[in-house]
Amino acid sequence: MKITIAQLNFRIGDFEGNLAKMLKAIETAKAEKSDIIVFGELAVCGYPPRDFLEFEDFIIRCENAVSELCKVAHGIAIAVGSPTKNPVIEGKDLFNSAYFLVEGEIHHIANKALLPTYDIFDEYRYFEPAKDFKVVEFKGQKIALTVCEDIWNISNENPLYTICPMDEMMPQQPDLILNLSASPFSYKQAEERLRIVRANVQRYGIPIFYVNHVGAQTELIFDGGSIVMCANGDVYEELPYFEEAIKTYELSKVLSGEGKIGEQPKDKMRLIHDALITGVKDYFGKLGFKKAILGLSGGIDSAVTLVVAARALGAENVRVVLMPSQFSSDHSVDDARILAETLGVEYDIVPIKSIYESFKNSLETQFEGLPFNIAEENLQARSRGMILMAMSNKFGHIVLNTSNKSEAAVGYGTLYGDMCGGLSVIGDLYKMEVFELARYMNKDGEVIPINTIVKPPSAELRPNQKDSDSLPDYEILDEILFQYIENRKGPKELIAMGFEEALVKRTLRMVNINEFKRFQTAPTLRISPKAFGMGRRMPIVAKYLS
Amino acid sequence: MKITIAQLNFRIGDFEGNLAKMLKAIETAKAEKSDIIVFGELAVCGYPPRDFLEFEDFIIRCENAVSELCKVAHGIAIAVGSPTKNPVIEGKDLFNSAYFLVEGEIHHIANKALLPTYDIFDEYRYFEPAKDFKVVEFKGQKIALTVCEDIWNISNENPLYTICPMDEMMPQQPDLILNLSASPFSYKQAEERLRIVRANVQRYGIPIFYVNHVGAQTELIFDGGSIVMCANGDVYEELPYFEEAIKTYELSKVLSGEGKIGEQPKDKMRLIHDALITGVKDYFGKLGFKKAILGLSGGIDSAVTLVVAARALGAENVRVVLMPSQFSSDHSVDDARILAETLGVEYDIVPIKSIYESFKNSLETQFEGLPFNIAEENLQARSRGMILMAMSNKFGHIVLNTSNKSEAAVGYGTLYGDMCGGLSVIGDLYKMEVFELARYMNKDGEVIPINTIVKPPSAELRPNQKDSDSLPDYEILDEILFQYIENRKGPKELIAMGFEEALVKRTLRMVNINEFKRFQTAPTLRISPKAFGMGRRMPIVAKYLS
Repeated sequence: MKITIAQLNFRIGDFEGNLAKMLKAIETAKAEKSDIIVFGELAVCGYPPRDFLEFEDFIIRCENAVSELCKVAHGIAIAVGSPTKNPVIEGKDLFNSAYFLVEGEIHHIANKALLPTYDIFDEYRYFEPAKDFKVVEFKGQKIALTVCEDIWNISNENPLYTICPMDEMMPQQPDLILNLSASPFSYKQAEERLRIVRANVQRYGIPIFYVNHVGAQTELIFDGGSIVMCANGDVYEELPYFEEAIKTYELSKVLSGEGKIGEQPKDKMRLIHDALITGVKDYFGKLGFKKAILGLSGGIDSAVTLVVAARALGAENVRVVLMPSQFSSDHSVDDARILAETLGVEYDIVPIKSIYESFKNSLETQFEGLPFNIAEENLQARSRGMILMAMSNKFGHIVLNTSNKSEAAVGYGTLYGDMCGGLSVIGDLYKMEVFELARYMNKDGEVIPINTIVKPPSAELRPNQKDSDSLPDYEILDEILFQYIENRKGPKELIAMGFEEALVKRTLRMVNINEFKRFQTAPTLRISPKAFGMGRRMPIVAKYLS
Repeated sequence: MKITIAQLNFRIGDFEGNLAKMLKAIETAKAEKSDIIVFGELAVCGYPPRDFLEFEDFIIRCENAVSELCKVAHGIAIAVGSPTKNPVIEGKDLFNSAYFLVEGEIHHIANKALLPTYDIFDEYRYFEPAKDFKVVEFKGQKIALTVCEDIWNISNENPLYTICPMDEMMPQQPDLILNLSASPFSYKQAEERLRIVRANVQRYGIPIFYVNHVGAQTELIFDGGSIVMCANGDVYEELPYFEEAIKTYELSKVLSGEGKIGEQPKDKMRLIHDALITGVKDYFGKLGFKKAILGLSGGIDSAVTLVVAARALGAENVRVVLMPSQFSSDHSVDDARILAETLGVEYDIVPIKSIYESFKNSLETQFEGLPFNIAEENLQARSRGMILMAMSNKFGHIVLNTSNKSEAAVGYGTLYGDMCGGLSVIGDLYKMEVFELARYMNKDGEVIPINTIVKPPSAELRPNQKDSDSLPDYEILDEILFQYIENRKGPKELIAMGFEEALVKRTLRMVNINEFKRFQTAPTLRISPKAFGMGRRMPIVAKYLS
């Protein structure tokens, strides 16, 4: 028996496009005389469809797509993810299902039992969990057809669910597991995915064909890395990250391990680098945009953002604006210009002094006699934001936001100013990770000027301003933030870890009182296990650690 | 037996403040010789605590608050909502619980079984559903202690859950129901709440004491309206909306109906008006702010927003800025000025012409030879946004956003321009509802100038511009939007309802492609059953009806 896995990049709600992509993959699989082709979770509509699932019209279009796939399910069985209607009136209206289509008929439907509802996942919002579990019989093989999370409730210290679908199916003696997934990237995910898949084959003693999506859906990036694993826990093959792949396997070889290829290399910075490029490329491509614009300050954040943009979209599709003020140092403008020239990116220089002056003049009466403060600092950042937005409106660019996660965490940024833009590219990288990524980008030769990497970070909104004037050193700040945000450590635990009490309290307070700013930020490409945005939901009005 | 219900306004994560408020209510109840006092759902930490629940430290503080309440549970039993830890390792780590404290001890804990996970609710994100149900025995009464949604799975055409906790408890023959709720306001909610409560007493034949929260938590407004209902379905009393109330009832009288008071009046516009005032008042009060600022254009949206702000915060705490451009009509400035003077609100006039010119001059090279387009329109809106933000930064105001739901739906607004602000006050009111609210505000005499209400809506960003140049008439637009957003009707259903096909497609497309703008909008006070924001989660990058 031959099994094909199709690791594809779908567009949410693009029923025609997704179907066409699947039909082509089926042609390929048929040409290779495959017996089964397997697509990812909710492949017909793309993942995550979010509240589109509440529209009857949307579900009908999913059903229509499955009908079209049924028509070509001749000589090959098709396993494909789609929402289906729950026939029982009590409970949620939908199931998150895996169809198994054989000879023009729906041979079997397996419904997902474990509905991830944490971090960026909202599946119980839409789906009723499955209560019964049956293997599929096909060509003499008994197949455990599972959807994503259904294989994830083993080998965890603190299991999230009270049942384990594979345990339920084992009495039926399945020969192999097919898993249809949509499992988003984080820099830890590829390892974690292999660990869980291996825990399954080792517990159940049968091989698995695990199919993931690839490509970005707004802030979520799917890395692919689909897995074929032998029953002994050896990786038969791990498909590449961040690209589509269609590949056919002979089951007998997977069972014997003959011809196994093994896994992909997993370097954190390379994964992040490639993930961000995928994120930018798909954000633009799937929205039908080509051109990006961003403000280039000479600092590290905009430099790294620009390199990602140029690599994702092509230097010819990226434009940068240098917007010096009276507080900008000469070297900033030079560093920015050098980078733009190195990359071959078009740049404009638009000084903000006259705009800033006209605002100050217009508010002369109101501000009379009052000292320079954050109002004037923000006016500069907002003048820059407005220039970028005006260019974007005039020429059809999307503005890329250049904030990092440390800034976003502590609110060190100006709403509608440097926080503007349609997509936050590096907003899930702490400042120290931004430096690391910059060095990774320079690994084959200096792309980002070394001066941009070594100079002390500064917002340049006041004379001789440095980030360290108002923030703790990033080495320490980032570590506290990581423990608070990623690891959910509270103040007592942080102090017990050795961080200074006053610093812990100040930092946590900054994070919590700045929720209002993050609420209005662009979607942020998620590369960590806990990004700001849909995966971290906090009250704005609250009094906790604030 | 006497039962006290405490309809209180908590602050999320303000453990000391919430506890102090409860201790005071307990004193009151003790003075009235009450046997039981009932607080709302998750009262110790406030509702919704959202991802604070993922912090061990937060849960410990909840437990500490319950311990403090235990200490005063002498001579009176206390029913209070709090998260509790799930002792079983499998499943979610927490329960959403109702404690029943008697004589310094935890007498009983009832866990919530039905975990709302739809619209603005995310409870399965945090909580494991209860599987067993026991009544509490206290002073000869058997009490069905329930948490909010646990009584909501009856009398619905399409029940969301497969079990019904009260059905499970009825074999134990409870004498009454206590329900600890946190049920947010919409203009339909008070009626719906009464319907469900009545369905329960009629099905089970026992009275209910239903306790709700009051006050706003960022975008969610809790209206109170706690209910004591006789076993025959008569309303013994419905507590007032939008104010705290502590009231003690003699159970025997509730059983006989003696002295019943009945329900509150339910006028849609009055409910919305009072809800918005609560929303603004608590947003400011709970954040520790006093002063608001907004741009007053002479149009209906900013006029209605201003009246809400002045009534919520006091005219002395509100400042408005009139920011005319070359496209502003004289009557706009007059209408704005008259309103500010009528309300006694401080106003500034800051023309934007020179700022706008300085932007245009700065971008002269880039924009040379290109026609006036949306870039210039948006520059005006953004100049206004920047002026408001600068004033806010200088004087410590919060900027109020003045967009309505129709605009937010179709993207008829400028990001970082008129879409700026910390809180969207009328962003859940369709344009026609804004007119209706304006007329309601004028019911006892003209507050909002009649000219503001009767003139055709215009953004005034181009000569003689009218909203109707680029949008369908609001009468029709609002109806399509309502059917699409509130009722989730798809294009075919809308066309079948009689709306013109081209108009339907154009409108739905506008809604869907503008998700990116709404993503970056301020939190919006929710007054409808389906508001933009946390209750409506849509992909930004998608191709569905777009």
